[in-house]
Amino acid sequence: MLSKKSAGIKSSAVRELLKFSKIPGVISLAGGIPATDLIDVEGIDTVLKDILSREHRGLFQYSVTEGEEHLREQLSRWNSGHNLNVDAESIIITNGSQQAIDLLSRVFLEKGDKVFVERPTYLAALQIFGYTDATVVELEYDSEGIELNLLEKEMAAGGVKMVYLTPNFANPTGNTISYEQRVKIAKLSQQYQVVIIEDDPYGHLRFSGDPVPSIFSVAQSLFGKNHNVCYMSSFSKIFSPGLRLGWLAVPEHFHMATVVAKQALDLHTSTLNQSIAAHYIESGRINERVEILKATYKDRRDYLIGSLHEYSGGDITWNTPDGGMFLWCHLAEGIDASQLLQECIKENVVFVPGEVFFARDPQKNSLRLSYSMLTAETAREAVIRISRALKKIK
Amino acid sequence: MLSKKSAGIKSSAVRELLKFSKIPGVISLAGGIPATDLIDVEGIDTVLKDILSREHRGLFQYSVTEGEEHLREQLSRWNSGHNLNVDAESIIITNGSQQAIDLLSRVFLEKGDKVFVERPTYLAALQIFGYTDATVVELEYDSEGIELNLLEKEMAAGGVKMVYLTPNFANPTGNTISYEQRVKIAKLSQQYQVVIIEDDPYGHLRFSGDPVPSIFSVAQSLFGKNHNVCYMSSFSKIFSPGLRLGWLAVPEHFHMATVVAKQALDLHTSTLNQSIAAHYIESGRINERVEILKATYKDRRDYLIGSLHEYSGGDITWNTPDGGMFLWCHLAEGIDASQLLQECIKENVVFVPGEVFFARDPQKNSLRLSYSMLTAETAREAVIRISRALKKIK
Repeated sequence: MLSKKSAGIKSSAVRELLKFSKIPGVISLAGGIPATDLIDVEGIDTVLKDILSREHRGLFQYSVTEGEEHLREQLSRWNSGHNLNVDAESIIITNGSQQAIDLLSRVFLEKGDKVFVERPTYLAALQIFGYTDATVVELEYDSEGIELNLLEKEMAAGGVKMVYLTPNFANPTGNTISYEQRVKIAKLSQQYQVVIIEDDPYGHLRFSGDPVPSIFSVAQSLFGKNHNVCYMSSFSKIFSPGLRLGWLAVPEHFHMATVVAKQALDLHTSTLNQSIAAHYIESGRINERVEILKATYKDRRDYLIGSLHEYSGGDITWNTPDGGMFLWCHLAEGIDASQLLQECIKENVVFVPGEVFFARDPQKNSLRLSYSMLTAETAREAVIRISRALKKIK
Repeated sequence: MLSKKSAGIKSSAVRELLKFSKIPGVISLAGGIPATDLIDVEGIDTVLKDILSREHRGLFQYSVTEGEEHLREQLSRWNSGHNLNVDAESIIITNGSQQAIDLLSRVFLEKGDKVFVERPTYLAALQIFGYTDATVVELEYDSEGIELNLLEKEMAAGGVKMVYLTPNFANPTGNTISYEQRVKIAKLSQQYQVVIIEDDPYGHLRFSGDPVPSIFSVAQSLFGKNHNVCYMSSFSKIFSPGLRLGWLAVPEHFHMATVVAKQALDLHTSTLNQSIAAHYIESGRINERVEILKATYKDRRDYLIGSLHEYSGGDITWNTPDGGMFLWCHLAEGIDASQLLQECIKENVVFVPGEVFFARDPQKNSLRLSYSMLTAETAREAVIRISRALKKIK
């Protein structure tokens, strides 16, 4: 009785691996989840007690679909100090940034449309596009970055409706799109009237290199308010995933249709949780927390890279990202990372095989290692175990 | 650039009318919103302080897609004392029950499918089905209830994929589906393999008459675990809409696909808010609160009916519901409720014209009056103002 599309969509391998990571003794490099020990529980509690001490009856009633004005204003002010110049009226609050992808796919995609994505790309975006009538096409990276020449050719030929991009420390590759490519993307989007989705959950977690302006800001400065770039980010990696809060900034001509889609989907996002986030930004705590996260994740990245240098015996290669949570790795050609995972489960260590991040023709020898939860000790032990498992299947 | 479907879906008239209801001096009979003064803020605060006093770091981390076990268990236990016999494993927690409709439309509907709905029906369900490729067909009520003979004929002819029903004190009509019809619906669903969506946000708010078992429970007792009825309800009308919490119970053979859809849409519902609801049920406060709501809404319904008797001069007729929040009313044939609304806005009183609840050929002389926010005084004043406006357009 299921629809054909629904029957074709599998549960995320990342979510399925979560159950292994909860077994005592298992070291998990699987989840794209922020370190539990770094969640600022004390800070959230303080903010919550402050909220409860004021008049707060309204937080439990229905609210506006676009999101609480207080939160949208705080986000506008806070982001303007970083790489996003956006006014509060352009922001729509969502249940994590993942819902924002779904909203936009609802607003724009229909039969015959093509959605271009990086190859490989964020797994949940592939899941969401799987529920639409659009066709997913993958864009390779070369030494210059994304193959924009191919993209331009396809745009000129027509049928490209949307390009979904993860500009900073992408999941899974760790790639960052250069400023030059962002300008080019913004211009192509305007010339060919193609929607760009800029999904940026990791942008605040840069450890090295210079920040790059968002494609949204580039397009806005080039073309004013009615450009075609939709930007989204999340509180999940820098504050609290459990509160399910993301934000979406859309140009003016897309705003009404996006709000109506959010209204139809679930009316609005939790008012209480929005208030917690607004007060947390306003208190300045978020900036302190982001600094702690950046320093810690940089250390954890370096623990993992150091251990790979020391213990993997050249059997694993990796990209070094400037931020975020992931090392994108490869085994020798012909070695299957899914088969390695099966051996690794026996060794009490798990990761995500890279194949799940491809729309088609997966690189079977790729894997994603998340370092967000590691210590120097567990990083070392994880790599030793993976290398031991690798020896068994080579 | 919008998709054709998206361009065709309007913002909900109910949401648009909210802005009028916030103007001082305006009496609103428009919103389907619970009375703000009846939200148990003290109870929620007590529960929240209790949660914060225990180990609660996990509430801010990612959680499982189907919802917190604690909440699902409490819901199973609590509902079994009412009209729903469902185990915790069959429950999926959603962002309000509206998201549950969207989830199921994603899981089941595809091109060529027909969805049958009551005529008139819940506005947001019509919005959600508007994003799908299915065709909406309306079922009239006659003196026996819904015209099930027509439905059966259509099922036998094929193409009916889903029937969306609001069994108790429906929005907008206040109708309740009889036990005999529920049994018939459960049987038809099994015989013709058609999905039933039983949307029951008001079921706990019965003031008069005997409770009727849910179609879900009827189907389960007749056909065991693999029947075809999906039940959903919400915390929005009995606890707090601002927390955005609903629950969905699906038979076993639909469970996996529904969880995967929830995972793709937004991973999971706020862990903190789920914990608040679980503790609120466990504390027993929810039963006390429901009793208060029932007594108060009954009074408010009777204030409104009393005022209509006294002041409407026979120009408005209505259904008297056994529960819920709405009077479904009609003006004389030929009088347009939308035109009346325009006059009423000048008189500082608003309601929802009935036409928005029809998929096609609306009854232009129908209107929905919500009594949830009224007092004896505002009910009287509202009806006096509506009657005055009505005289101007007659």
